[in-house]
Amino acid sequence: MEVGIIGLGAMGRAMARNLARAGHDVKAWNRSGGSVDGVTMVASPVDALQGDAVLTMLSDDDAIRSSLIASGMLAQAKRGLVHVVTSTISVAFSRELVALHEQAGLRYVAAPVLGRPDVAEKGELNVLAGGAPDAVEHARPLLEVIGGRIWDMGIEAPTANAAKIACNMMITMAIEAMAEAVVLTEANGLPRERFFDVILNTLFGSRSYQVYSSKIMHSDYEPGFKATLGLKDLRLASEAALEAGRVLPMLTAVHGRMAETVEAGMGDRDWSAMAALSVGPPTL
Amino acid sequence: MEVGIIGLGAMGRAMARNLARAGHDVKAWNRSGGSVDGVTMVASPVDALQGDAVLTMLSDDDAIRSSLIASGMLAQAKRGLVHVVTSTISVAFSRELVALHEQAGLRYVAAPVLGRPDVAEKGELNVLAGGAPDAVEHARPLLEVIGGRIWDMGIEAPTANAAKIACNMMITMAIEAMAEAVVLTEANGLPRERFFDVILNTLFGSRSYQVYSSKIMHSDYEPGFKATLGLKDLRLASEAALEAGRVLPMLTAVHGRMAETVEAGMGDRDWSAMAALSVGPPTL
Amino acid sequence: MEVGIIGLGAMGRAMARNLARAGHDVKAWNRSGGSVDGVTMVASPVDALQGDAVLTMLSDDDAIRSSLIASGMLAQAKRGLVHVVTSTISVAFSRELVALHEQAGLRYVAAPVLGRPDVAEKGELNVLAGGAPDAVEHARPLLEVIGGRIWDMGIEAPTANAAKIACNMMITMAIEAMAEAVVLTEANGLPRERFFDVILNTLFGSRSYQVYSSKIMHSDYEPGFKATLGLKDLRLASEAALEAGRVLPMLTAVHGRMAETVEAGMGDRDWSAMAALSVGPPTL
Amino acid sequence: MEVGIIGLGAMGRAMARNLARAGHDVKAWNRSGGSVDGVTMVASPVDALQGDAVLTMLSDDDAIRSSLIASGMLAQAKRGLVHVVTSTISVAFSRELVALHEQAGLRYVAAPVLGRPDVAEKGELNVLAGGAPDAVEHARPLLEVIGGRIWDMGIEAPTANAAKIACNMMITMAIEAMAEAVVLTEANGLPRERFFDVILNTLFGSRSYQVYSSKIMHSDYEPGFKATLGLKDLRLASEAALEAGRVLPMLTAVHGRMAETVEAGMGDRDWSAMAALSVGPPTL
Repeated sequence: MEVGIIGLGAMGRAMARNLARAGHDVKAWNRSGGSVDGVTMVASPVDALQGDAVLTMLSDDDAIRSSLIASGMLAQAKRGLVHVVTSTISVAFSRELVALHEQAGLRYVAAPVLGRPDVAEKGELNVLAGGAPDAVEHARPLLEVIGGRIWDMGIEAPTANAAKIACNMMITMAIEAMAEAVVLTEANGLPRERFFDVILNTLFGSRSYQVYSSKIMHSDYEPGFKATLGLKDLRLASEAALEAGRVLPMLTAVHGRMAETVEAGMGDRDWSAMAALSVGPPTL
Repeated sequence: MEVGIIGLGAMGRAMARNLARAGHDVKAWNRSGGSVDGVTMVASPVDALQGDAVLTMLSDDDAIRSSLIASGMLAQAKRGLVHVVTSTISVAFSRELVALHEQAGLRYVAAPVLGRPDVAEKGELNVLAGGAPDAVEHARPLLEVIGGRIWDMGIEAPTANAAKIACNMMITMAIEAMAEAVVLTEANGLPRERFFDVILNTLFGSRSYQVYSSKIMHSDYEPGFKATLGLKDLRLASEAALEAGRVLPMLTAVHGRMAETVEAGMGDRDWSAMAALSVGPPTL
Repeated sequence: MEVGIIGLGAMGRAMARNLARAGHDVKAWNRSGGSVDGVTMVASPVDALQGDAVLTMLSDDDAIRSSLIASGMLAQAKRGLVHVVTSTISVAFSRELVALHEQAGLRYVAAPVLGRPDVAEKGELNVLAGGAPDAVEHARPLLEVIGGRIWDMGIEAPTANAAKIACNMMITMAIEAMAEAVVLTEANGLPRERFFDVILNTLFGSRSYQVYSSKIMHSDYEPGFKATLGLKDLRLASEAALEAGRVLPMLTAVHGRMAETVEAGMGDRDWSAMAALSVGPPTL
Repeated sequence: MEVGIIGLGAMGRAMARNLARAGHDVKAWNRSGGSVDGVTMVASPVDALQGDAVLTMLSDDDAIRSSLIASGMLAQAKRGLVHVVTSTISVAFSRELVALHEQAGLRYVAAPVLGRPDVAEKGELNVLAGGAPDAVEHARPLLEVIGGRIWDMGIEAPTANAAKIACNMMITMAIEAMAEAVVLTEANGLPRERFFDVILNTLFGSRSYQVYSSKIMHSDYEPGFKATLGLKDLRLASEAALEAGRVLPMLTAVHGRMAETVEAGMGDRDWSAMAALSVGPPTL
């Protein structure tokens, strides 16, 4: 398939490479240039919109708005193109994208992904796909290259974005839960590795707890996924909660904590650096 | 071994039965009487303090204080007795128990357990054991009957209590995390079973998320572990945080939420009924 | 001056009556009809937009949007008309109104007011006025009728809305502060009237504390200003905080508390009924 | 009257000086020595316990415990002595002091005060007095020297402590309320002095808002009353809330905020420096 890629951050590069390896004809655009084996670089986003499909992996609403929407480029895309947005964007912006693509005669699939760059490299992302069934079907061969599993989030694209935001919110809550638990246990003499040994082998033996307990244990906050991005996603969650007319107390707590993390100068550290606010370096 | 049991709630009964089955000579006392196969009922807690060891499974600090401490019964216990307290009690009270047992010439082990009554029945609890090594060794044959695994929490008994409190705190956080995520996703059209399907098979595939997502999915809040007990444990966590001179934002959020749950008349429901405050019955 | 009034709730009625008494030629529209002494009722909002100025006192963004904007009525207003919006609306919507009025060749003043209906009756409201100086000057004779004092909030209309939202947020914080203080003092044996006597005569002797301590003291939650409206205003504050990229912990606390108040069925009570969640009826 | 003073911080010095000026025979002890006009310095706290009354103005529970209780000095005090504790101490410790004084045959009055050192200098503190009526009457001539007004908090000493803690909690809430309001209004273009002008002249024209808006306006966080002491008092409030079995959301928010203030290195600044976390320096 002839497929465009817009955005070559760590995630976008991995997707582009995997699509090329799988035999697709990939044309990629990136604001700051770059190159990927087997991929043709193009000079303008418009050039990436002339194939059968395009995958956008830009960082947020604003990046998509300024690269693709403000410039009116959607109007110059190939009619019938399926635009797969894999970024974590707001529910409200996703709703706006539904309307904009309809006006431009394009098809839009929201397909945010779960997984860090190492998982993207292996093509084993979990893809949360939402959109009109024909559009999702059209995109499926591509999604199956980038993802190990495609989760059907229904026929409304924004539903997939809400699900992704909720997942990221839950990860930050798991991080903070471990941090607060470590505060209580270390204050009473239990080294954090002993505590983590218990919870990982009993109640909380899942991937998110494994990954982030390890980072907290070693005070290793190399990103990974940056705290600034985590803060953005919690902001999206707070916006979605306000839209739903709800006050969610734990979301609020963790949103405030991530904001403090960024304000404390750790915006470029892994989002799990939020734990450092509570636990400090290992003390036992 | 000649072993006493104090307290025959669902957990205490299961432990007593398993100890009797394992061939120990078990004498049990319970405030409201009762009987357990193979177990001799005694008329006063003092009668349960005359063996090699005694296991106490009363509901909280106050129950232990009024049954065993206020009455001065520890002074009448057999010298050298190992007292294993499996209840979830406060760190401060556990510290007090260390001193009281020392004064009375007794040995004290804190051994709070992870697991609900069905796990206790099978003798597969996770036991968090803290205390002087000789006392823990003395109690080990009993702990191995009630537990599938014994976790060494160190030589200070209160450390084990802190660990247990932290675990229960983390479970309430997992419950509330799922509830808040469901609010965001259902408000955007995703049925909760679809969302749980994603998280249980990707980031959060552990026992606590499995058990409680199922309860939330079916709005099934039969206890299990009652909200009033959950509230007590979060109170213990808040006390431990204050003692440590720390304000833990997510603990505060979930403590407030559990208090609301009890105030809303759901104190006798399962502690996961806290989720009902946010999610309501399934709407999709 | 020929002046229209849109919206005849308790506040709008008082303003209309005072403007008529002051000799202005007042034409009023209200969705559910009604009449006010000395005021001409008109059949459509458009009829109220043909004078020198119009005052809108509808309950919220949505009411204004559906009554005046969605219908395209602004395009039918008399050119040069000054539109004074005295409602508490969102900062974002106020910004949108700036643009819409400019497009329609109209002038827009944001003039939210501080004061309950009894203060409006006396024409002693505090008016927070923001907008282009010529527009504010044009409206001043009207503002001086409805208000005891006009506060200059600068040349951007939305600034006045932010100020009003902040004031209402602060009132809810004063209410909750008194409620939480009463929890601590009554739990330790001090009747609430004794505590209020201290604070009103020392640190907190201002109008907001006087009014709401009296309501809390007598558990008298007759509105006044309804909890549903208080919740709306806290939602506007939360939206403004998110827009500013900030997490404000006390706003979050009070927003959650007001949401609980409405969920507990007290939406039609005075917003100070929020205190009832904490303090209950007098117990001493 | 022959009266002892224990503790010569800014508050204690002002009280000692005023009592001496009023003609009382004042003997003072201070851990780090010092001198006050007209006051006799003594070498041990015990020497200050031999008169008709003693006023203690130490910083917290621990200071009183280590200076007077741990050393067993109460047993060496003159029988019938009235001990007036003007410090802000915990409700629990005040309850303990009731028992300790009874055992030692002494009389105990809790008389925490409202007012900063400049008010203490003028002898115009507000005194919240609780205790047995005969003890309070005995102390009244002294309280009338240090205070402009004596507020009767009832016959239980700890009630007065709860009231003081609640007052200080409310002040921190007023500070944070102003800070959060400034965040919203400055983000929308309103200089803080304009906003404060509105609220001080309308809804919030009381002493606490006047004093602290001025500090926020000028980013002047010279103490005054230090953030570390504010944090202590909020800790006492949180303990009292836990004792009362209540979760108070706004207390939690402000307690967390004050903890952040101290963690950010501002513990020796005025407690209103908490506002700096939110508002930063004036930006408009």
